[in-house]
Amino acid sequence: MRDVYFDYGAATPVRPGVVEAMLPYLKEQFGNPLSLHRYGDGPRQAVEDAREKVAQLIGARGNEIYFTASGSEANNMAVKGVALMNEKKGKHLVVSAVEHLSVINAAQTMEKMGFEVTRVPVDKYGLVDPGDVENALRDDTTLVSIMHANSEVGTIQPIAEIGRVVKAKSKAYLHTDAVATAGNLPVDVKELGVGLLSLAGNQFYGPKGAGALYVKRATRIMPLIDGGVQEAGRRAGTENVPAIVGLGVAAELAASEMEQRRAHVLPLRDRLIERLTGEIDHLYLTGHATKRLPGHVSVVVEYIEGEAMLLLLNMQGIAASSGSTCTSRALKASHVLTAMGFDPGLANGSLLLTLGSGNSAEDVDYLMEVFPPIVDRLRQMSPLYKAD
Amino acid sequence: MRDVYFDYGAATPVRPGVVEAMLPYLKEQFGNPLSLHRYGDGPRQAVEDAREKVAQLIGARGNEIYFTASGSEANNMAVKGVALMNEKKGKHLVVSAVEHLSVINAAQTMEKMGFEVTRVPVDKYGLVDPGDVENALRDDTTLVSIMHANSEVGTIQPIAEIGRVVKAKSKAYLHTDAVATAGNLPVDVKELGVGLLSLAGNQFYGPKGAGALYVKRATRIMPLIDGGVQEAGRRAGTENVPAIVGLGVAAELAASEMEQRRAHVLPLRDRLIERLTGEIDHLYLTGHATKRLPGHVSVVVEYIEGEAMLLLLNMQGIAASSGSTCTSRALKASHVLTAMGFDPGLANGSLLLTLGSGNSAEDVDYLMEVFPPIVDRLRQMSPLYKAD
Repeated sequence: MRDVYFDYGAATPVRPGVVEAMLPYLKEQFGNPLSLHRYGDGPRQAVEDAREKVAQLIGARGNEIYFTASGSEANNMAVKGVALMNEKKGKHLVVSAVEHLSVINAAQTMEKMGFEVTRVPVDKYGLVDPGDVENALRDDTTLVSIMHANSEVGTIQPIAEIGRVVKAKSKAYLHTDAVATAGNLPVDVKELGVGLLSLAGNQFYGPKGAGALYVKRATRIMPLIDGGVQEAGRRAGTENVPAIVGLGVAAELAASEMEQRRAHVLPLRDRLIERLTGEIDHLYLTGHATKRLPGHVSVVVEYIEGEAMLLLLNMQGIAASSGSTCTSRALKASHVLTAMGFDPGLANGSLLLTLGSGNSAEDVDYLMEVFPPIVDRLRQMSPLYKAD
Repeated sequence: MRDVYFDYGAATPVRPGVVEAMLPYLKEQFGNPLSLHRYGDGPRQAVEDAREKVAQLIGARGNEIYFTASGSEANNMAVKGVALMNEKKGKHLVVSAVEHLSVINAAQTMEKMGFEVTRVPVDKYGLVDPGDVENALRDDTTLVSIMHANSEVGTIQPIAEIGRVVKAKSKAYLHTDAVATAGNLPVDVKELGVGLLSLAGNQFYGPKGAGALYVKRATRIMPLIDGGVQEAGRRAGTENVPAIVGLGVAAELAASEMEQRRAHVLPLRDRLIERLTGEIDHLYLTGHATKRLPGHVSVVVEYIEGEAMLLLLNMQGIAASSGSTCTSRALKASHVLTAMGFDPGLANGSLLLTLGSGNSAEDVDYLMEVFPPIVDRLRQMSPLYKAD
């Protein structure tokens, strides 16, 4: 049996070079970066080096990068921090209907605290129309948060165009959740025209426990975690030096290897999409066909329940996902597919295959060898399929 | 020159056994704990094992432990989460004047959002009087947050007594910041009578990037980080599996070695305090003489500025601190010493020596060899000293 990992979207392995770079900070370089003695010097310098590397990955300045423990924390910091710090200017937020739950739920928390939230719809490919963002803008809008790409359906949003609209028509800050794109696609905060941007290291062969929020100079934002003077007073708590160092090295490697990594997964993705949609009936690609993350394949398989597919695929050695891993145990229909107009029954048949550096054409062929019989087997058990 | 680390309060080295336990989760066990396939199984099990170990360290149940990235995050989650979730019951919070800034500033943020905060004073030893807590309680008090021990002056608070008062006289939840004590002293949530308790692994030979908040069953608390279903929906973001595993092993080791570690540092602490106060004029112990963290020495040295002492000590190979490392670069007089009645001038001469497993009697003797000449040298430069 072949061992195939098709879940790079849930977590990437950590590159060996990244782990090696982290180890000294788990061992002899254990000092607190804020310490005023030599035990603090190495860790402090390492954190600042990592900050520069992360800044370079996205075309920012080092002093615009704030380390967090995850993409979710960065998203919460952006949404709540901007909303609360600017509430005298207005209490209206705009998000898309397909944001990650760390944005959706953060906005909902703000709603409970007296803010108004407009949720911009998407089309059947998961795309936000910049015109809809424009229509949602109000005089009291302080934040627009639209993700760069959706991790469930792979669709890449026209953020630069949205950035121009937001800038032309309002004084709101634009935040983009770039957790799925940063490190995997060229991301430049100036080209995108964003004031805030979230990223996470475990999406590009960095470690868990390290994310970052880019905050453009002169942006008014309140800390999510109050306390000490770490991160220029905007995010308290002793710095997770090993993870931050790992994030920095991962960012540096991602910048230099991006084209090569993309060239590796793109043909695999396209081959997989072509064979899945060509060889299996009642299977439909979700998300946009071309405005799509390079290693991202997402489909819905009619008459089948996603979790059953995952279990049988796992028994055949294939690790996959049925949607956002952050909600995988919640057993609710995906808010993303629902917003795209899929009925809940079809949305339950969601299958997500996210490819990475360890995958090969043989993995694709192996999937296409074992998956059709799984589909047949599960459909034989489905009363709906028989009736159709 | 001797290499002496007297700053265990800022960061402990990570125990080799802890690092070893973490490594598989930085390498082959890289899966997302929420994944519904075998790559998720090991990490998920490891996180749950760590949860049990942390629970055992403090006499709690596993499902009462929520992992965070730091003690500061745990403190913010406790203060803001309880305040916001219970605001219909009341908008009054009680904290002590010597809390860590992650509690002080979180309470201040709540104040800006319309809550009232009562700050209970301390005596000249940094002790909170349970009677003062009782007097501060109101019908609309929803949270009392008093630290277990203060990291700047080492004073251990009578939390069990405060717990009885809070329980008898109010319906408020009691939170204690046990970052300085958990793993270093016996801590039992039932004996302390607390509903919430914060801890951090880097205070007891665990890694940076892993803390926890104990939340007693049936406590109403809002997430600080909204999003996915991680941590039972109370703290979103992909789990930092390696750091959590490290925290678990560190908790297990702390529980089994606590007495031995305490027995190692206690005589060193007492010897250091005795020699410092006995051999250097105009030097005073801060904090309580006996109700004190086992490895904790804090003094103020009159006519001297703390940072200058640190730099000269560092040149002699001794790593020390002048107060809370979280504020060490803020160059403000410590709110803790000010609350204890020290005038700002004297408070600026604060020196903090925190001892741990790597220290020996020779370290103490070495400090007493090099420190008095440093004091003399700096005092010769002080116009105030000459005038005295």
